[in-house]
Order: sequence, then C-alpha cells, then structure tokens
Amino acid sequence: MVETGVGRFPITQVWPSVDNGKYPAKAFVSEVITFSAIAFREGHDALAVDLKITDPKGKTTRHQMHPGKPGLDQWKKELQLDLEGIYRFQIAAYDDVFGTWHHNTEVKLNAGIDQELMMLEGKKLAARFSEKNKKAFVEILKIFETEKDPQTTFQKVMAAGFEEKARANPLYDLETLSAEYEIFCERRLAGSGSWYEFFPRSEGAKKNKDGSVVSGNFKTALKSLDRVVKMGFDILYLPPIHPIGDAFKKGKNNSLNAGKEEPGSPWAIGNTAGGHDTIHPDLGTEKDFRAFVTKANKLGLEIAMDLALQASPDHPWVKTNPEWFTTRADGSIAYAENPPKKYQDIYPINFDNDPQGIFNEVYRVVEKWISFGVKIFRVDNPHTKPVSFWQELIAKVNENHPGTIFLAEAFTRPAMMHTLGKVGFQQSYTYFTWRNSKTELESYLTELASESADFFRPNLWVNTPDILTEYLQYGGKPGFLIRATIAATAGSSWGMYAGFELYESVARPGAEENIDNEKYEYKFRDFDKALAEGNSLAPRIALLNQLRKDHPALTQLRNLVIHQTDDDGILCYSKHLSEAAVGKADTVIVVVNTDPRSARQTMVHLDLEALELPESFKVKDLITGKSYEWGKDNYVRLDSFTEPAHIFEVIR
Amino acid sequence: MVETGVGRFPITQVWPSVDNGKYPAKAFVSEVITFSAIAFREGHDALAVDLKITDPKGKTTRHQMHPGKPGLDQWKKELQLDLEGIYRFQIAAYDDVFGTWHHNTEVKLNAGIDQELMMLEGKKLAARFSEKNKKAFVEILKIFETEKDPQTTFQKVMAAGFEEKARANPLYDLETLSAEYEIFCERRLAGSGSWYEFFPRSEGAKKNKDGSVVSGNFKTALKSLDRVVKMGFDILYLPPIHPIGDAFKKGKNNSLNAGKEEPGSPWAIGNTAGGHDTIHPDLGTEKDFRAFVTKANKLGLEIAMDLALQASPDHPWVKTNPEWFTTRADGSIAYAENPPKKYQDIYPINFDNDPQGIFNEVYRVVEKWISFGVKIFRVDNPHTKPVSFWQELIAKVNENHPGTIFLAEAFTRPAMMHTLGKVGFQQSYTYFTWRNSKTELESYLTELASESADFFRPNLWVNTPDILTEYLQYGGKPGFLIRATIAATAGSSWGMYAGFELYESVARPGAEENIDNEKYEYKFRDFDKALAEGNSLAPRIALLNQLRKDHPALTQLRNLVIHQTDDDGILCYSKHLSEAAVGKADTVIVVVNTDPRSARQTMVHLDLEALELPESFKVKDLITGKSYEWGKDNYVRLDSFTEPAHIFEVIR
Repeated sequence: MVETGVGRFPITQVWPSVDNGKYPAKAFVSEVITFSAIAFREGHDALAVDLKITDPKGKTTRHQMHPGKPGLDQWKKELQLDLEGIYRFQIAAYDDVFGTWHHNTEVKLNAGIDQELMMLEGKKLAARFSEKNKKAFVEILKIFETEKDPQTTFQKVMAAGFEEKARANPLYDLETLSAEYEIFCERRLAGSGSWYEFFPRSEGAKKNKDGSVVSGNFKTALKSLDRVVKMGFDILYLPPIHPIGDAFKKGKNNSLNAGKEEPGSPWAIGNTAGGHDTIHPDLGTEKDFRAFVTKANKLGLEIAMDLALQASPDHPWVKTNPEWFTTRADGSIAYAENPPKKYQDIYPINFDNDPQGIFNEVYRVVEKWISFGVKIFRVDNPHTKPVSFWQELIAKVNENHPGTIFLAEAFTRPAMMHTLGKVGFQQSYTYFTWRNSKTELESYLTELASESADFFRPNLWVNTPDILTEYLQYGGKPGFLIRATIAATAGSSWGMYAGFELYESVARPGAEENIDNEKYEYKFRDFDKALAEGNSLAPRIALLNQLRKDHPALTQLRNLVIHQTDDDGILCYSKHLSEAAVGKADTVIVVVNTDPRSARQTMVHLDLEALELPESFKVKDLITGKSYEWGKDNYVRLDSFTEPAHIFEVIR
Repeated sequence: MVETGVGRFPITQVWPSVDNGKYPAKAFVSEVITFSAIAFREGHDALAVDLKITDPKGKTTRHQMHPGKPGLDQWKKELQLDLEGIYRFQIAAYDDVFGTWHHNTEVKLNAGIDQELMMLEGKKLAARFSEKNKKAFVEILKIFETEKDPQTTFQKVMAAGFEEKARANPLYDLETLSAEYEIFCERRLAGSGSWYEFFPRSEGAKKNKDGSVVSGNFKTALKSLDRVVKMGFDILYLPPIHPIGDAFKKGKNNSLNAGKEEPGSPWAIGNTAGGHDTIHPDLGTEKDFRAFVTKANKLGLEIAMDLALQASPDHPWVKTNPEWFTTRADGSIAYAENPPKKYQDIYPINFDNDPQGIFNEVYRVVEKWISFGVKIFRVDNPHTKPVSFWQELIAKVNENHPGTIFLAEAFTRPAMMHTLGKVGFQQSYTYFTWRNSKTELESYLTELASESADFFRPNLWVNTPDILTEYLQYGGKPGFLIRATIAATAGSSWGMYAGFELYESVARPGAEENIDNEKYEYKFRDFDKALAEGNSLAPRIALLNQLRKDHPALTQLRNLVIHQTDDDGILCYSKHLSEAAVGKADTVIVVVNTDPRSARQTMVHLDLEALELPESFKVKDLITGKSYEWGKDNYVRLDSFTEPAHIFEVIR
C-alpha cells in the first residue's frame, strides 16, 4: 500500500486541532478536553479506537474512546490535562476482533445458527489472547475446551470476564495511526482568571487646595492592593507605567495640547526620561515597582503590564533608531493617522525597516520587566503590528520564560483576532461588551466555548477605559450586576476596570467611553464611602470570584452549554464537569434576566443528558442560599430591580 | 523570523482544498472553480492578493483576486480549467503600495492636508515602478516632476493610467506565499455526464412459445444502442457481464434455489466457465463484446462496466486462491452474512489475507477490460472493501490509463462516502433518490454543490434495479417527470435505469425495488409501442439531455444557487456561468413543483446579484418556448398534472 495513503482504517477530523495541526491546540492546566476523531471501517465488523497521548514528561498512555452519536463514526474521550507543556497525541484504530465475535455470537445464538462454529471461533480467539497474557485467559480457554453446550459456554466465558480481559489485552490487529497532533497546555491563568485594571497614578492621588494634584505612585497604590484582593481577583493589570511624551500631549477628555499640569495619556510612551524600559518618575523608582510586584504576589495577585509598541515623538528611540519609524518623502517622521484623522502624539513603529533590531529591543524590554516579577503582558493593539512579529516574540519569551502570558487587545475582524490566538497569544479581548441580548449572548458564547476554543481564549471584560457601552450607560445598577454575573460565570476569564464597581455610567458625549476619562487625568474615587453607603458592587464581585474558586466548573471554557428558555430575555447556561473526567462532578446552572429594566418569568428547559442529571434533583441558589427541586422543565421569575440572576449549584 | 511561521501576511483557508491539502481537490475539464483564501494584514495599509497557478503543462500564470464580502478578509477569483492533469496553485499576498498611496492621497486631497507631501510620495513610488518598467512610467514621472498643483498632478497621473500601469507591474513588496495546493482536473465525464443502465441479457431477449427464453446478447443489444443515443445519454452502464454462479442461485423476486432455466443475479459472479475476466457465454464472445463497445463509442456512447469484487462459491478463485476468502474455524469458507441474515450465494473477499495478490488480480481484470475499450467502472459496494485498496487501485489505473473513471456505489454513512471520494473515486451515487420534498432538496443539493464538491462528485440517479422509491411508486407520471427534470439539471451527472422512461412503478411488496426485478429474470419491454402510445418519457429525457448540451451552465456542479420561493412545494434553483469566467454568460433558471399531485402558485425571489442580472430581463421557457419579462420577484404557477416545471434560459 502507498505510504501517503489513507491507512487501513481511515481516521479524519482529529480534535482538538488547529488548522489541521499547523498550530498546537490550546489548553490550560486543569482543563477537561474532549478528544474526538472520525474513524470507520469497511463492512460490518467492529472497530476499536484509542486515544494515545504522551504528556509533557514523556509518559504515554492509551485510552479507549467511546462512539458518539449513531451514523457519524465519531469517537470521543474526555481527559483532564494537569501538566504544563506540550502533549502529543494520536488516534489509533484497530480491528475489534473480540467485539466482532461477541456481536455475531449473541445474534447467532439467539437465532440458533452456527452455534458450535461460534464456540470454535471463540476458542481460537481466546487462544490468540492467551499468547499475549496466558494467565488471564487460562480459565476462559478451559471453559471453551470442556463445556459442550454453546449457550452455556457463552454464558460461562462472559461471566469469567472474557470481555473485560479482552479489552485489557487488545491484539491491535491492523492498527492504524493518525498523524500526531499537539496541545500546548499552559498554566491556569493563561486560560482562566479574573482581572482588575487600575491606573496606579490615581491610587492615592491627592488634590491640593490650589487644585494641583499629587500623583499616586507605587507606594500609595500598595494600599489599594487590599481592595483588589478582597474582591477576589487573580490579576491586576496596569496601563503603561512609562514616561509620557510632552509633544502633542492629550488633555482632559482627549483635548489637544494639554496644559503642563495635565498628566497625559500613558499610551503616549517615552520622553527624555526614557521609554519602554523606564518607569514614569511620578510613579516612583524601579525599587518601588519591584516592591509593588512583590507585595501583590504575596497577596496572591499577579501584575500584568501593558506592552504598547508605539512611541511619543519624545521617545529615545526616535533619536537612537529613527529607522524604526517611517520617514516620509519630506524627511519627517510619520505620525499615526487614519486619514484624514491625525494622531500626532504617536509615532507608529515600522516593523519592516529593521525587523531584527526592533525584535531585539522589544525582547530586551520584555525581559527587563520579567526580571521584576512580571509574568503577564496585556498587548495594546497587536493587530496594527505584523502577526509574524508576535509569533516570534511570544515563542521566544515562552521558551526562555515558560508561563509568560500575553493578552491581545485586538478589536478587529475575526481573521486577525483568531490568527493572533493561533500564533501564540494566550488570551484575547472579545466583543462580549457589545453582546447584550439573550440571542446575541447565546450565539457568541457558544462560538467562544466551542468553534474557536482550540485557539482563541476569550477574556470577558465588562468595561475598559475605552469602553462604556450603551447597555451600561442606560441599564442602571441592574445592568452592571447582570454583566458582571455573566462575565464571571460564562467564560473562563473575565475582567473589570476600576470604577465599574461604583456604577460609573456617564459617557463623554458622542463617545462610548467614560466622561472625564482616566486616560487623560487623575481620578479620585472613594471606594470605602460607596461601600458604606450601599452604592458599591464590590461585595457581589467578591461573591462571584469566590464562586469561581469554589466551583472548578465555572473556571473552564469548553464546558459551557446553553439551555432553552421560553422568554426572549432570560438566558440560561450551565458549566458542568463530569465525575468521569475530574473525580467529583461539579455542575453550576446560571439563569439571568438580560433585560435590566424588567421582571420576567419563563420556563427553563434543561438538557439533562449534557448535565448527566436524573429527572429530578436539587439545586441551591448560591446568591440567596435557597434550595429548589428541579427537573427538565422549571419555572423561573427574575426581577432585575431586585435580583436579576440565579446561580444554581446542583446538589449531588 | 521562524521558518514554520505564519508569514509576513497571514494566508489561511485556501480553497479549493481537501483536508488541508492531504488530497487533491477535484475538478473536471471546463469546470469553473472559485478560488478563495483568507488573507489580511496589520493596520490600515492596502494588501494585494494573487492566485498563482501552474497548469498540467507547467505554464504558470498569476491572477489578481478580488475582495469578498466586507469584514471577512476573503479574496476570490473564478477560473475555468481546461486541461486534464494536476494544477498546482498558491496564494500570494503582498504590500499594495499603489493602493495605499492612492487611498491616502484621495482622502488627503479632499481634506486639503499633506497635498505636496503626497505628490512627493507619489513621485517616489512612480520612480520605483519605473525601475521595473521604465517605458510605462516615463509620462507619469514627468507629470510628477513638472506639474506644480497637487490636485492637477493627481488628476493627470491617474488619467495617464498610473493605476492600470501599477497593477500591470506589481512590485510584490513583502510577498508572502501560501502552501501549494493541488487540483486534479479530469476529463469532463469524470464529473459531468448522463448515464443509462440496461441489462444486455434483456435487450433482444425472446420468449419462446413453450415459455423458455432465449437470452439477449451483445449482438442483439447492438440495436438498443440507438434507443440510448436518441435519448442523448453519454454513458451506458452494464451490470456484471460475467458467468453467474450455480450454487444457491437466486430466482425470480429474490427467491432461494432458482430453477435451472432462471438466469440468476449477475452480481453472483463466477462459475466453471470463468470469473471476473470472463464473459457470460449467453452474452456472446469477447469478440462480440469488443464489437459492442466499438459500436457504442462510434455512436458517442461510452460503456461503463460493473466491478463487483465478490465471488459465487463456483468462482475459479475459490479453488485457485482460497486464501482470498475467510476460512472459518470449521474449515469452511465464510459466505456473506449480516447475522442472522445469510447470503450463501456470495463469498466476500478477505483483503487482509493476501493484499498484494488480490490487488494484482483485480488490477489484471481491470486492465483486461480497459483493453476492450472500457474506460469507466461502476464499483459495486466499495464500502465493504478497505478504503486503502481503492486508493491504491484507482491511483495505479489512472497512472497507467489516464481518464479512467470509477463510480462508487456506496450507500452508507457520510464519513465513508466522502472518504471514498477523497481517495480517488471520480463519482459517487447519492441519497438523491430519497430527497424529494422542496426543503430536503434545497439542503441536499446545496451540500452537494458546495460543502462536499471539492472531493465528492454526485451522480443523481433517478432509479436503479435496487431502488424504486415511494415517491415513484405513488407519484404517477408527474413524479417521473419531476425527478428526471431535477436530476438532469440540478447536478452535473445524472443517471437512469431502463424502465424509468416507461413509468415502471410497481414494487415488490415490502421492498423498495421493482417487482419481478430484472436482477433475477429477463425483461421484455416494448419501448417503441410505449412511445407510439404516448406512454414514454423518452422524448422528455431526450430534451433534457439536449438542454445539457446546449447550456454548459447545466453541466456544472459548483454553480448551483437556490432561490427563495413562498410555496413549500415549489423549488427554484439556477445554474449560471459568468461572462468573466467563460467568455459568454449562460444562465438557466429551473422552477419545479416537487409535489406530483397538485397545482401550485408562488412568488419566486431571485438572487439577482448571484446571477449578475439587471432588475429586469427576459427569460425563455425551454420546454414550451414561451418568453416572459422577469425581475427579482416573479409569479409562477405550476400544475404537476400538465407540466410541473419551467426551465428558463435567460436571454442576454
């Protein structure tokens, strides 16, 4: 037979796989992966299919796969991955000689034909197995040799464990192997975590009586870490902490030509004090930053830094390496523009002029901050830089510093967003903020949890300094509660930018972002006062993050299942981990009214098979503590003005 | 940058491709293929994308691709393939420096900014193009050098053909190439043709007065060729023409133990007279068969032979090569069975016992018949033999005898049917016979013409000796007319088994096949009498096949488009070939009432964009000759009892 052939038994559509194996599929430690493949054979005989997997330590195991829905020739196996590194797997299909004999024998004994013949065939088969494991088949062979009545023989060999022993000692006749595929299993935070964002310059900033401001810094921001930890977040993300350019500095509400006293946008990086490798003098010293990271880590919080590859006209690179920018025909350096719009405070980098030089410099910057204890980078607008640059950078950083995480802030067309994930970005911002209705959420969450889950790890941010959606502008407090509930429970990662817990909902007219935006000024927020007055969502945020710690099912992505409801505003989904995969089943069912200005009631129709649930069971609402008897069809009423969601734990 | 990288510009989802290039995509001579790919770049600059294709003679051409729907980053190019053999193609993406300059210049001149600068940039660009083709850009460069006013300069260089010349002399900056993909372009009949099936033993068979029968043979069947040619068929398929086994011979209506005078089923191959390499003595000599093939070819008809790889217990192989069958534990040879059902007249081949020996013998048989002028084989039940066997056989036969066609008679699960196509079968039977309602047809025809078209070439048979559907049993004459109309116009290949044109509709009770089935007996049909009495569909069949000759659009597969109708019984689809692709546009619109027992009326809503049609145009019904003014929305009434279909030619 030809070497490049289809193989003795065709095996196709091996899953998980990305672009047919061009890129490794993504997974994170603790994640339950459903491996699958189409495998089939000619004629009527039985086929057995195994998953053959080698873990990052080099240990190979085999797992029998189970047939999926009839007619599709699909085979499946759920497995929880628990090591960081590359898993390699293949699908093995082979002649199920025992299965064929067993099926034919059952049918023929029932029909009363070929009875003696089938016992002869069985004896031959047992003899073959015996060559592999003599001890296991001694008794079975003896039954075949001594027992005369076929029906009795069959009963006896089955009772003696013929099936179990045959399955435990496969002959692997005509074994055919698929190509080998890879899964890159990363640490848990690569795919699952809760994020909080604040501007360190606002944390502890003080307004003097004359209106001047004393910037917050890494020392004053230390206190704020407690606030973040109390809400249960895993990661604290800081906008750029580097010197800010003076040329064309942006002022309050994105105005041009800011006054000297205005701090400017942290994304206009670089001035005479330094660039991407330097800390803004207002924020403190490198020692202060190191202390900040260390304290955060002690509190169980990782620090994510911003990586915004662009320069203010004052950036040192402009002098040392003008070739890293585009020089226009008149000799000037090109600023950012989307004609006719100009962004003169920003020089974009031209990656094609000196690719290796730029790569080396960016790599140096990243390594510098890694040496401070930073293991996570939030990348600003990666889709305006060559995809191949990111592929190389992320690969090299992860090779030298395993566990480093890059979050892509790309809001653009699907091909680019998906490809950034394929080439290495551990995580990506999503269009979740703009998916607010029940039907929008059903289809988008399904896409994220299934179609794109092998290469695109979504982070469901509820807001950012750039995004304050109409839903939040006009949804009132229930709107904030609804969005936090869905973000924290539907995906595996979610994020929140400071001020969300204070229900900040006023937009700059004509823009979809906060008025008096923190990007261009200091914010003076009194979180404690809001909490004391009952105007803070912080306690609910803390509860949501605690539920994520209590319920491993909530922190996975691929286990999302949408359930039908009769109302067009009430969304229902579940997160389930099976006992077979993780040892102890964990099932959470979320029912949420997506309409922040209504009380609604509906029947909720659960897919009990997907949840491995009996017709009747008990659920406990983790918000109210109340318990209910539930089944396939359940009545739910949700008044957004009092409590828009149920988060049910299934009591097993 | 890493060698295995994504490339400077990501290129994904290249089409047509099968399993990401594991198998060549299928095409046939004259077929119009829509090449496509996802290609995109970072930021706002323009990208150009080319199809780079090398034909079987080694000639490479490049074709600019056009952007598809906004937001999808998809690029497309239609191309008609006209040579037999392997086409190799790649997608090339490169920096569209002219496009970027042109877009920015237009915007900036309108906004009145950077006007001189853009002319400087334009001049630099023209100088670069000039290095490639000095002559073409002399005038443009001169305008840039002499004209002072930017607006005038821009108008003048554009009027001087800057765009056309730039497109004709691309700089290919940062060119990135996709992987190379293959298309196997075969002769037209591999993908497009009309088939007729008859049993030669019935053609000219005579019943004596005593009830005994004189078999038809290749000499008497010669006369029947005219009938087939008159109906306009391309291919005549003959059930097996080999000696038939005596052991357990099947009689009338599939009864066991046929009498000596009964001819038996042609699929029970082999007796003392010979096996697969032998002609049934009743049918004549090898010389007769050769004369039959030669005559058919002269009439423009190709002969398709049956390749049924199984043996009667009397087959010579059973004695010469018992190892090609399965020996049971009691020493007997295994007959076919699907326990508890037994098929004792058939010994299945065991392909795993002596793969190379069996391969050599089958290859010898195939080559023997090829030497008689046979170029087409209809393979009986390929899905009960190893897929890898077919892959090897079809590859070797096609290597030594290019243009040989294999039609797979596999009615089974989609994975097997599709894989048989992928590994080489040129054509496949389909589930068309069981897709009768409008919605069934809409989804099935769409699947055949798009999702699976790259690897699975459907042949839409309306009946076979094994299949007489309930639709035909109970649909009356209109049912036959409807099915023939759809089969002949919706796919690219269709087929019909003798008797269909006589509206044979009585089934054997409990079976979905003709009563007194020709598989087990001779049939004595009077085609001429039926024709004379107006009880024959032959004239309509001839018309349908003639329309296929007149309208190239009808003989393609991938150009099918379903159009919306308001009635749940009236189906509308079109076949369109664009002027750009084939030089002269050809558009046929079919509207058919799928309900054989009703008169229905509806509005038909055409997708004018897909058909490249204006808001108003003329159509001519090719059945009645009547013309109509049509547009986007059109009223149609179809009475199945008189005429269930319109076949409209668009008059351009």
